[in-house]
Amino acid sequence: MDAKKAREMIRKGNWEGPTCGIAPGFTQANLVILPKDLAYDFMLFAFRNPKPCPILEVTDPGDPEPKNVAPGADLRTDLPKYRIYKKGELYAEVKDIRDFWREDFVAFLLGCSFTFEWALIENGIPVRHIEEGKNVPMYITNIQTKPAGIFKGKMVVSMRPIPKDKVVRAIQVTSRFPSVHGAPVHIGDPEAIGIRSLDKPDFGDPVEVKKDEIPVFWACGVTPQAVALESKPEIMITHSPGHMFITDLRDEELGVI
Amino acid sequence: MDAKKAREMIRKGNWEGPTCGIAPGFTQANLVILPKDLAYDFMLFAFRNPKPCPILEVTDPGDPEPKNVAPGADLRTDLPKYRIYKKGELYAEVKDIRDFWREDFVAFLLGCSFTFEWALIENGIPVRHIEEGKNVPMYITNIQTKPAGIFKGKMVVSMRPIPKDKVVRAIQVTSRFPSVHGAPVHIGDPEAIGIRSLDKPDFGDPVEVKKDEIPVFWACGVTPQAVALESKPEIMITHSPGHMFITDLRDEELGVI
Repeated sequence: MDAKKAREMIRKGNWEGPTCGIAPGFTQANLVILPKDLAYDFMLFAFRNPKPCPILEVTDPGDPEPKNVAPGADLRTDLPKYRIYKKGELYAEVKDIRDFWREDFVAFLLGCSFTFEWALIENGIPVRHIEEGKNVPMYITNIQTKPAGIFKGKMVVSMRPIPKDKVVRAIQVTSRFPSVHGAPVHIGDPEAIGIRSLDKPDFGDPVEVKKDEIPVFWACGVTPQAVALESKPEIMITHSPGHMFITDLRDEELGVI
Repeated sequence: MDAKKAREMIRKGNWEGPTCGIAPGFTQANLVILPKDLAYDFMLFAFRNPKPCPILEVTDPGDPEPKNVAPGADLRTDLPKYRIYKKGELYAEVKDIRDFWREDFVAFLLGCSFTFEWALIENGIPVRHIEEGKNVPMYITNIQTKPAGIFKGKMVVSMRPIPKDKVVRAIQVTSRFPSVHGAPVHIGDPEAIGIRSLDKPDFGDPVEVKKDEIPVFWACGVTPQAVALESKPEIMITHSPGHMFITDLRDEELGVI
């Protein structure tokens, strides 16, 4: 199935589950929708923090069509599930946001780790949480993001245990994809970035780290959502976890060289 | 001389000429200053057109210090020469913009081709306009930029003749530097992108294209200035051509892998 067909299926209500594994090879994206008066600060925050906040598309105010990465798509209907937050609190989880859409809404599509995990696997590097059928473990670190306007906070990272002899290759492979978090932000000692216990992630599930493996940490797309919610915007809409937007981009197109 | 010393020399009025060759190895940047109410559209335009508009820094409104790329610097005094435009017309050329500074000004620093020309030369690829002691030839193309708010227009490119057997290496070398225009946008036939005669550049000087050479075209930093002026903003301040801002970044730090 290609991306367009997948979006049609979702739009018609024929798919309500997570998007992992749907339209393989096509880039999936995180969604953050904010009113225009917050969009400048959010875009600046993303620009200053490209590793946790890699922007793939910013729509024109009021326009739900992501013209560059999926012409013809509609961001109000083409994701299986959305979360609506009011003043930082979860207000509703819905399958369609047409009733909530406003003329001053700006939608941000942000790169997601599915893309670089595919690249790791293609390169023969195991991805533990996929092997274990779990969600990736995520941790709040002591790494400060660079603030922009009202947005500020700590960086959230995801962790993947990498065999010692594959760490260099894992860095090379993910470096090619700066628009989906890129190279790791830290290798090894979790405490050096403020993580007390790998067994107790702040989000997602713990995974096994084997004897010959080193924990490697990548900037995580949860960061911009967490930072935006912290600022308690009047309204903010996101995808539901795992229920992403499927773009027409192919993963390999995001490789910088 | 390092970047900090170079900026001090300029700030004290001890250097008023072009910055090419000063503080070698340190990244130089184009400057565009706009009022905050235009900054969102300009940043979105740059995001949608990263090849002609590679952003290195966006300052907070009213703050003349580019905290990330040159902490301690002052963008009002640390460039040798500035141009002030009102409603799209050149109003003044000055050595210091402290008298013109406003609390709603946002400064954009954009990557400049000096960085990738250095990389080409280091890789044994000749750069003709440097050899000939001229300004790089620049052409207005028929390539439409992606519009954002009030900003729209054609892409301006610079041209460098590259020996046939070095074109692939030139692409590899410049691909490493997406934040200073990156890979070429076109190779060969000028008419294919709307350029009638290489002998008549729209900006800069014509250079010789030898028999075994192919004209190669890169997106040019003149594009965002031209597009911004076209929109006739009430006020806009830029560096004077060739009189750039010298950052603390080292050119090699901009390499993506």
